[in-house]
Amino acid sequence: MKRVGVVGVGLTRFGRREDASLRELAFEAVKACLSDAGVSLRDVESMVVSVGSDELAFALQPSAQIVDYLGFHPKPSFRVEGACASGSMAVRTGWMTVASGLSDLVLVVGAEKMTEVPTPVVTEALGKGGDPMWEYPFGMTFPGYYALIARAHMARYGTTGEQLALVAVKNHHYANLNPYAHMHKEITVEDVLSSRPIAEPLKLYDCSLISDGAAAVLLASEDVAREISKGSGKPPIWIVGLGLATDALSMSEREDLTTLRGTVEAARQAYRMAGVGPTDIDVAVVHDCFTIAEIVAYEDLGFCEKGEGGKLIEEGRTHVDGDIPVNVDGGLKAKGHPIGATGVAMAVEIAKQLRGEAEPGRQVKDPEIGLSHNVGGSGQHVAVHIFRREG
Amino acid sequence: MKRVGVVGVGLTRFGRREDASLRELAFEAVKACLSDAGVSLRDVESMVVSVGSDELAFALQPSAQIVDYLGFHPKPSFRVEGACASGSMAVRTGWMTVASGLSDLVLVVGAEKMTEVPTPVVTEALGKGGDPMWEYPFGMTFPGYYALIARAHMARYGTTGEQLALVAVKNHHYANLNPYAHMHKEITVEDVLSSRPIAEPLKLYDCSLISDGAAAVLLASEDVAREISKGSGKPPIWIVGLGLATDALSMSEREDLTTLRGTVEAARQAYRMAGVGPTDIDVAVVHDCFTIAEIVAYEDLGFCEKGEGGKLIEEGRTHVDGDIPVNVDGGLKAKGHPIGATGVAMAVEIAKQLRGEAEPGRQVKDPEIGLSHNVGGSGQHVAVHIFRREG
Repeated sequence: MKRVGVVGVGLTRFGRREDASLRELAFEAVKACLSDAGVSLRDVESMVVSVGSDELAFALQPSAQIVDYLGFHPKPSFRVEGACASGSMAVRTGWMTVASGLSDLVLVVGAEKMTEVPTPVVTEALGKGGDPMWEYPFGMTFPGYYALIARAHMARYGTTGEQLALVAVKNHHYANLNPYAHMHKEITVEDVLSSRPIAEPLKLYDCSLISDGAAAVLLASEDVAREISKGSGKPPIWIVGLGLATDALSMSEREDLTTLRGTVEAARQAYRMAGVGPTDIDVAVVHDCFTIAEIVAYEDLGFCEKGEGGKLIEEGRTHVDGDIPVNVDGGLKAKGHPIGATGVAMAVEIAKQLRGEAEPGRQVKDPEIGLSHNVGGSGQHVAVHIFRREG
Repeated sequence: MKRVGVVGVGLTRFGRREDASLRELAFEAVKACLSDAGVSLRDVESMVVSVGSDELAFALQPSAQIVDYLGFHPKPSFRVEGACASGSMAVRTGWMTVASGLSDLVLVVGAEKMTEVPTPVVTEALGKGGDPMWEYPFGMTFPGYYALIARAHMARYGTTGEQLALVAVKNHHYANLNPYAHMHKEITVEDVLSSRPIAEPLKLYDCSLISDGAAAVLLASEDVAREISKGSGKPPIWIVGLGLATDALSMSEREDLTTLRGTVEAARQAYRMAGVGPTDIDVAVVHDCFTIAEIVAYEDLGFCEKGEGGKLIEEGRTHVDGDIPVNVDGGLKAKGHPIGATGVAMAVEIAKQLRGEAEPGRQVKDPEIGLSHNVGGSGQHVAVHIFRREG
């Protein structure tokens, strides 16, 4: 199999970006990415775009706005989608574009503009990611889905509200060290537990953010990656494992609410392709759309035994100096979650970590192998990617 | 570059399918496709889904409905989108999945359910494929875009309403021979010219149809394709050329309204990759969302000189016994245009033609090389694919 490397990364500040439209956010991330690689847009052969929702973009083919504003036409580009995992579908598709031999240099862009519409409209739009026949019409939206998961996990494994809160506290702490994060505000376990209930047992501070933002990565074939790396002085970060899995649409069809089968399966594929296991991972970003989701991800990715996720955060093992640092960029929880951008931003974060370029206080010590985990809906699409810096 | 072959094809009847939902339409096409190949769904390794519009599907991640209803989970699947060219994005992505070595057997499914919402809502939803800042809010929708193209083509090249009408007459004729087509009704030039104006100079019969429908193709790596072919007795149809191009979002930014730059560029890429030229094409399907679009496609694909498209249809050269038969399945115009399905249905039609399996009266005589041309929006995404039966 051909080698495909990340040779450039770019990110916008996440948050309420009243200063920028969808296309302007994408431009900002692409500009940063090309500048990071020292490459001109003229040299890029094709593009893959991730936008999560037509409805929030008020568009059909929202990616055409981005192609146009970048002045990328007439070169190849199209959009991929898997709800909140859309960004990882784009990274996967970018990888395939290079590995299949179609292009040697591919730009992967993810963007979402979410704060222009009222929060209930966003919640409704995203809620349609569940079953639009048997769930959504009866009032289910995402806080409800993850509240079911939290309740089940608490009932079976004794996971506590305090343990969930510790995830929020950790992720707010690292977001505070990340200039690109939406939230710059340290919080305490007490803040989380006393915040207003959204869908019990989940409180306001258990929920990720509705953010605007964009991210971009530049992918290259092996020879081109080495060439660009020579110019930029930054090591290529190779994508060495790709996992993608799906699950039943309706939560009622799942055998077990305390696990995401998609995560287990996608991780199996990615570990196998990369020839590594969970203990080899030096740094990870996981899909913490709600605090419970990070705990379930610890377990499903094999960072601890099933049911031990609460203990893992309690023991501080997922902090930057722990044995498996997770979401030390702030996560969806506090860095923000512009849905089409999220998966691409995960690749950006892992590449930065493996290059040793993360900000002080949140840089993991000399990591070689990183993992990203991105979930669409309540697990209908799950992608796990493994990245490696050449030792 | 690895060889990728179409080894199975499946189509639903297009039309007002009150008997089937989005997921049921997809199931119907997939069942036909697997049966055609003699393959079980268990053997399929991954899937790519094309659905054109979240809004018409009333869903986020509409592909999850299809994955679920097929019982395909936990295997890999995601959605690709490029408005009305989404189906060809899926074929391209399926090709990349095989050519990159990720899977040896990939199902490509396109589906759309359009007749459940009123026509003006569909027109609005699709209209958002134009510029949502500078066009759509001022009342532009697709009949308007293509009316501009028609007026410009008439003004520069003297193309006539009668020539446009001849495209409709041809495509209705062949749809009448195609049991999967939405329309089974022969029409005359007089019927077209006297039908009510939609956006002058385009009349009702110059417009393609709003249809429900689905299509599926099964793609395999060379060895697997030959194996399956041995079992099914049907020759693999190799995808030998892939072109994908983009254009400015707003029509006002285009230098020339009488051509789609995306078509010219995508065709250039596809011909080059396949090592053939326009005169080598034995049968083609082109994106006749409006009659003028077929005439412009003749020219942009190189089937005739620029400005000679009207003459090409007038001389009957794009009929089944002409030198370059086009849309002898009825086209979008009369077979129907369920947007997410269209590009996949084009691959189905070309594979059927190259296998010699099209219905009597519309089977081209012993074709070896076929071409599909699929347009998203008013040319923001254009795909051209070239298929070849082994001689």
